[in-house]
Amino acid sequence: VIRGEAQRVPCSPRHRPAGAGMLELPFLPFCALLGGLGAVCVAFVSAWCQRWRGGFAWDGSAQMFNWHPVLMVTGMVVLYGAAALVYRLPFSWSGPKFPWKVLHGALALAAFGLAVLGLVAVFSFHNARGTPNMYSLHSWLGLATVLLFSCQWLAGFVSFLLPWAPAWLRALYKPVHVFFGSTILTLAMVSCVSGINEKLFFSLKNGTTAYSQLPSEAIFANTLGLLILLFGVLVLWALARPDWKRPEPDSVDAHQVPAGASS
Amino acid sequence: VIRGEAQRVPCSPRHRPAGAGMLELPFLPFCALLGGLGAVCVAFVSAWCQRWRGGFAWDGSAQMFNWHPVLMVTGMVVLYGAAALVYRLPFSWSGPKFPWKVLHGALALAAFGLAVLGLVAVFSFHNARGTPNMYSLHSWLGLATVLLFSCQWLAGFVSFLLPWAPAWLRALYKPVHVFFGSTILTLAMVSCVSGINEKLFFSLKNGTTAYSQLPSEAIFANTLGLLILLFGVLVLWALARPDWKRPEPDSVDAHQVPAGASS
Repeated sequence: VIRGEAQRVPCSPRHRPAGAGMLELPFLPFCALLGGLGAVCVAFVSAWCQRWRGGFAWDGSAQMFNWHPVLMVTGMVVLYGAAALVYRLPFSWSGPKFPWKVLHGALALAAFGLAVLGLVAVFSFHNARGTPNMYSLHSWLGLATVLLFSCQWLAGFVSFLLPWAPAWLRALYKPVHVFFGSTILTLAMVSCVSGINEKLFFSLKNGTTAYSQLPSEAIFANTLGLLILLFGVLVLWALARPDWKRPEPDSVDAHQVPAGASS
Repeated sequence: VIRGEAQRVPCSPRHRPAGAGMLELPFLPFCALLGGLGAVCVAFVSAWCQRWRGGFAWDGSAQMFNWHPVLMVTGMVVLYGAAALVYRLPFSWSGPKFPWKVLHGALALAAFGLAVLGLVAVFSFHNARGTPNMYSLHSWLGLATVLLFSCQWLAGFVSFLLPWAPAWLRALYKPVHVFFGSTILTLAMVSCVSGINEKLFFSLKNGTTAYSQLPSEAIFANTLGLLILLFGVLVLWALARPDWKRPEPDSVDAHQVPAGASS
């Protein structure tokens, strides 16, 4: 009993300082709020392209470019955020982890697929009108983010989904995978904001006075940028919260000795 | 002895999975590397403004604007990063915490001072030539970041440096302060990258072909943007590493029962 008590009271990962109880928040309502915010981001970027930028097509025109922001925000921010949060779902904590790994990998793969389509949209648009590719800081950063994401997905697939990786390699790679998960989302947020900013300067130029007079399009798309940041920061916050993390087999919680078990 | 052992072995915050030992890294060499990278960022942004953008003045001209990127990168990224890492210095872990709080607050205040000067530089430049202020997503986000930082500094000063805040309030506010610390750095990185991207489109316009032909200035300033992101991500990584965190008085480490003490 002494050993069980000593483990549980002072050092459970759920132990937090006095007062922290007032900040308790259940995951599922937060998740619903986050889902709503993600849907608002997708609706905003689609409405921007539909109402002010001429809608959508897949023919090398400016309407083809419009798929770029929609697919990038939907894939690299919203779907990516959903993939990152899979292990925070409380009903994923008990039972086998494998199905949740498959869901995590599948959502990330879907996000990657949308990102690749988003890249095809912008490269096709540039190539069709003879605009050079890959010169702006936004383009360097955005491509680097998607490349990092592809490495992250492949390394995660090989290490955690295929059965051949030894336990020591999984243990070594896991904190790296977790850290790069948050980092890639951060880089996606930077890419989206720099891209929206750049697009508004391109679209509302007339000597850049039109953007500077804050027409409704500028207010709408600036707000979209802030909403993407809010969504991303909330995902990063949920990922960092210790008490929303899945208890791991080698953690204290999982090995908890029930009171009385050792007496 | 049983109680002491039970506390130490399975649940020390330093406990990490097998294999993680291979990723051990001492803080001080990492810190030196980070300091070098921060110095490179300041040197790059200064060299960009000096060599390609006409140098510095404080007279409402384009040379006054040039203080804006230099002061923002130096204050909101490099000095801010240094302030955030104060409690990770191993020699700050023993002895009274108060002097390190003063250093943390003083570095953050210096960063805030540079950021305010950086805002004065860009507003004066705009006002002197009649350019509207605060219309781009970069400007909205940048100002929001500095405002959030000022709230964070004031709340931290009142809660942690003045003696009047009750312990429960400090315990309640501390995780919020820590989370917003990383968030504000993230927003500063987004602001810097969107600002560099925007400035290059402004400066290298000629119908935007000059930027698109990647002159040496574009390569140099794009690289600056990537270096700022690398610096910021490394700071966020150092802040998130559990084994670099200062042991708190109510944590397991600080209350560690030395082996044999209870026998």
